[in-house]
Amino acid sequence: MEKILNKIESPDDLKKLNKDELKTLCSEIREFLIDSVSETGGHLASNLGIVELTVAIHTVFNVPEDKIVFDVGHQSYVHKILTGRKDGFKSLRQFGGMSGFPKTSESDCDVFNTGHSSTSISAALGIARGRDLAGDNYNVISVFGDGALTGGMMYEAMNDAGHSKTPLILILNDNAMSISKNVGAVSKHLRSLRMSPFYFRSKHAVENFLKKMPTIGKPTANILKQIKRFFRRLVIPTTIFDDMGFIYMGPVDGHNLTEIIQCLEYAKEEKRPVFIHVHTKKGKGYAPAESNPQKFHGISPFDKATGETKKGSETYSARFGNTLVRLAKNNKKIVAITGAMPNGTGLDEFQEQYKDRFFDVGIAEQHGVTLSAGLATVGYTPVIPLYSSFLQRAYDQTLHDVCLQKLHVVFPIDRAGIVGADGETHQGVYDISYLSHMPNMTILSPATLDQLEYMLDFAINKFNAPIAIRYPRGGTEAENVPSAFTLGQAQRMQNGSDVTIIATGRMVKRAEEVAKLTTKSVEILAMPTIKPLDTKSIIESAKKTGSVITIEDNVKIGGMGSMIGTLLEENHIDCKFKIFAFPDQPITHGSIDELDKLYGLDAKTIASKID
Amino acid sequence: MEKILNKIESPDDLKKLNKDELKTLCSEIREFLIDSVSETGGHLASNLGIVELTVAIHTVFNVPEDKIVFDVGHQSYVHKILTGRKDGFKSLRQFGGMSGFPKTSESDCDVFNTGHSSTSISAALGIARGRDLAGDNYNVISVFGDGALTGGMMYEAMNDAGHSKTPLILILNDNAMSISKNVGAVSKHLRSLRMSPFYFRSKHAVENFLKKMPTIGKPTANILKQIKRFFRRLVIPTTIFDDMGFIYMGPVDGHNLTEIIQCLEYAKEEKRPVFIHVHTKKGKGYAPAESNPQKFHGISPFDKATGETKKGSETYSARFGNTLVRLAKNNKKIVAITGAMPNGTGLDEFQEQYKDRFFDVGIAEQHGVTLSAGLATVGYTPVIPLYSSFLQRAYDQTLHDVCLQKLHVVFPIDRAGIVGADGETHQGVYDISYLSHMPNMTILSPATLDQLEYMLDFAINKFNAPIAIRYPRGGTEAENVPSAFTLGQAQRMQNGSDVTIIATGRMVKRAEEVAKLTTKSVEILAMPTIKPLDTKSIIESAKKTGSVITIEDNVKIGGMGSMIGTLLEENHIDCKFKIFAFPDQPITHGSIDELDKLYGLDAKTIASKID
Repeated sequence: MEKILNKIESPDDLKKLNKDELKTLCSEIREFLIDSVSETGGHLASNLGIVELTVAIHTVFNVPEDKIVFDVGHQSYVHKILTGRKDGFKSLRQFGGMSGFPKTSESDCDVFNTGHSSTSISAALGIARGRDLAGDNYNVISVFGDGALTGGMMYEAMNDAGHSKTPLILILNDNAMSISKNVGAVSKHLRSLRMSPFYFRSKHAVENFLKKMPTIGKPTANILKQIKRFFRRLVIPTTIFDDMGFIYMGPVDGHNLTEIIQCLEYAKEEKRPVFIHVHTKKGKGYAPAESNPQKFHGISPFDKATGETKKGSETYSARFGNTLVRLAKNNKKIVAITGAMPNGTGLDEFQEQYKDRFFDVGIAEQHGVTLSAGLATVGYTPVIPLYSSFLQRAYDQTLHDVCLQKLHVVFPIDRAGIVGADGETHQGVYDISYLSHMPNMTILSPATLDQLEYMLDFAINKFNAPIAIRYPRGGTEAENVPSAFTLGQAQRMQNGSDVTIIATGRMVKRAEEVAKLTTKSVEILAMPTIKPLDTKSIIESAKKTGSVITIEDNVKIGGMGSMIGTLLEENHIDCKFKIFAFPDQPITHGSIDELDKLYGLDAKTIASKID
Repeated sequence: MEKILNKIESPDDLKKLNKDELKTLCSEIREFLIDSVSETGGHLASNLGIVELTVAIHTVFNVPEDKIVFDVGHQSYVHKILTGRKDGFKSLRQFGGMSGFPKTSESDCDVFNTGHSSTSISAALGIARGRDLAGDNYNVISVFGDGALTGGMMYEAMNDAGHSKTPLILILNDNAMSISKNVGAVSKHLRSLRMSPFYFRSKHAVENFLKKMPTIGKPTANILKQIKRFFRRLVIPTTIFDDMGFIYMGPVDGHNLTEIIQCLEYAKEEKRPVFIHVHTKKGKGYAPAESNPQKFHGISPFDKATGETKKGSETYSARFGNTLVRLAKNNKKIVAITGAMPNGTGLDEFQEQYKDRFFDVGIAEQHGVTLSAGLATVGYTPVIPLYSSFLQRAYDQTLHDVCLQKLHVVFPIDRAGIVGADGETHQGVYDISYLSHMPNMTILSPATLDQLEYMLDFAINKFNAPIAIRYPRGGTEAENVPSAFTLGQAQRMQNGSDVTIIATGRMVKRAEEVAKLTTKSVEILAMPTIKPLDTKSIIESAKKTGSVITIEDNVKIGGMGSMIGTLLEENHIDCKFKIFAFPDQPITHGSIDELDKLYGLDAKTIASKID
């Protein structure tokens, strides 16, 4: 029999299916997801968990008239399948192919690009207010996980939306996980709600119960009157979402199509801010993902039968994690803070061995950084590894709470530079630019795994001010860089007379490659310290060779090359000068090699431009 | 009789006073505050409101052993008075004098520097965790207003603290105002709590009530059993603070010393996370401030008898506000968003005239920016004026939600550059550096009020991408700058042959002053557009004069001068080059003129350095 999925061209086709057919469709979608993601890699567990919910949304609502904002967006695969982009999965997250996140440029069924967590209610409220001002009448829906709910923006947006009376449908896809196991008081609150009977019904039950009261005899009635007063004042509202002005409905079984559809139909009629609590299972329907949802959150291509992925070589994240465990043994002042990513950042082992010195704050980078500042004021050395792109959330806290007070907080910045398949919202190409102008900040970047180890020891044990160490995704290493470095000093890797190549981090290896491809006599300065710059070595070398090129995996504006250019101009150094860095535009998805090449940062292109 | 206040050298002295003496002390502190702030200017209303609460805290707790973190910190005057800094009020917020915010460098009774909103719970939790790890036993207290509570960081921190069981005392100083009238669902929730009986007592009452239940006869008992179940499941918790794991106590009358002291004593014994809700009146005890707390939030020197301040000349904020009202008349797509500062940013008139197109989101810049992005996706033109220093909070949202999607959001950046008396946490000297590397971002800066008007019209009506307009505190204007400008083009104000001065915003006037002080033949390029830079004019002029200096009120790293330096070096322009900008260190408080001079940005110093 032909698959139902093959007949789905648009969400309109869903509306012709009966309940049984919809159920079959859900199974087919799961099969498709597993087949497809095992080939290309991508986000699997979250999409397996949201199959019924997405099908239900598209059964009840009509895109593109109705607007759906997917928080983070890695759980939009089912939405993409149902909105005419099934074929796109062959090229999912690949260079030139379909993005793994919502993209307004791909389809008018995507209304807001997401990537970072916790933006969806704000965006949806903006759309809803625009709708109201224009006198339109469509539905606006925000879909988010319990992980996203730990981000402060969600609260800011709910605080605004809840009192506004603007019709808006919030759907919490609660799988009791963000990327890893969820934390925090709200998570506990959700847990207690999940164990309650369907609240929406129970609220009605309370009302009915109260209606029956007056039939009871007189003396008792007095007590009951008191009870009723208590009920009115205290019982309703009972969830924090009620407290914030929403009509709370839930918990709904997120794998029971009938129940979800009924609830969405009801929400649609409310014409007020509604909060629907849907309980799902991450990885639902694929045993390996159900039992290890963290591993299948974002995954490389894997063996469908076993769930096994190929072992990669050692990464900077892993080396960071191992080194921190080692250092923590002798330094009891080390504490580690994570924003819901103990695995991604390599902290799992630390978490296990030093439970009392480990703090997972949820997807709450702002709080995480200021919490670190607080710990630093009483003599601890907080180490807070964050992806470059996610530290952006804590720009103000890093500047205002850590740097202005010159507190000893260590920022290991993972995924600095190109991250590859996740694409433009995740590229870590801004951190040199956003950190270098912060007073009291020091910025390091290792060219090898061993150098990272050396730097981490330095930053923790031999330094006493804000310090960032940026390192790339993966494990790219330069060949000839000694691990030991001196703060603020360049490492002259190779002497030359025609051209100076100044490179940092992952790009030191690139400098070595370029040197091999050119006939010029190349001098290489590796920059383990980006701030403060080794002005002396740079000026000396520039004077000697009369030609300087810089290579970095950061955008050009505000990057290392720009700082060096300014330095040379200020010092009246008359030399040739070229910056190799990422351009002033969003950086698309693709492999690191493909993107280096696209933006002219591959060895061949750089070598060809040396004159 | 000698004043009690004169005998208070440290909080220890408070502990010798009886209740009546404490009350008298509160009156004397109010008198002192009014006298003092009327002379120097400063934050008055919030400090008048927090007199009893601060006295109570210092009566119950012992600093410096116990740690108090004041959120924002402008309400720490009473704390400063009681911790030996009464004399500092003569020089409050003045150059070289006492800061208007907590400063660890001033006293060991200040444990964490604040300035921006909503950081205090994070910092306090960090301190408390450090205490627990060290096995210490002191109290950690965070004091914050209901305004701060609208910031998402507070929620992130409460989510973390509430489930941690770490002893921590949170004190909400609820005056139903942040800087201006408070907004949002949580505010509404607080209002309903304020109108409830003292909850802590009522919770006990419920428990007692339930204990008495079983004495009632059999058939009724069954119903009552049901009721008890409901109570257990639904009644407790009832406030969002209970839901988040805190022991909620309140509302307490914040001007009743006995009641506050009793509550604090109780909280001290709890050894768990406690949330105390104190209800105060902003401006309490000074009629002009009680009736207009917004005006007396942060105020210049004023006449004590009448509350009148001197009328200043027209500011950029005022011109912005008036212009927006004018433009909104003909362009129905304009919407305005504020982060709790309609007055400070000049939006009051807009708020009044265009109620439905005005959105106050609370102190929630992150949400405000992404809300704007959402509005932009459906055809509206959001204008979101923020102080430069506060836009820092929304760095990620500006980059990730607005710039990557190239949405037409207009960012009027008020208080760009030196802000003066508020000092290092409020200096707006980073925005060129943190905005210029964002793809798709355009940055303008007017040299006159008329030019701001022209730019705002341009940004709203003749542009269609993210755009920022940075303008200074006050009303400094250049003399000879035409309002009309062309995007990406410099304005050559004056031709010369010896030196090119490139200046932007407030510093265009400085360039004019410098030109008058030097005998050199000066060419002035005013830069209404900072990004994209007018590379052609800059290069031409540099070639012509052979000497370039740049002037801006931003830090040097990542600023306009740095961009120009890089440009010149890349283009192999062999000229003298100097950048005049703020240095890479926290910028202290003082008047704008004093600080310009301190950092070598006054006309005389600059002129002396032209060679």
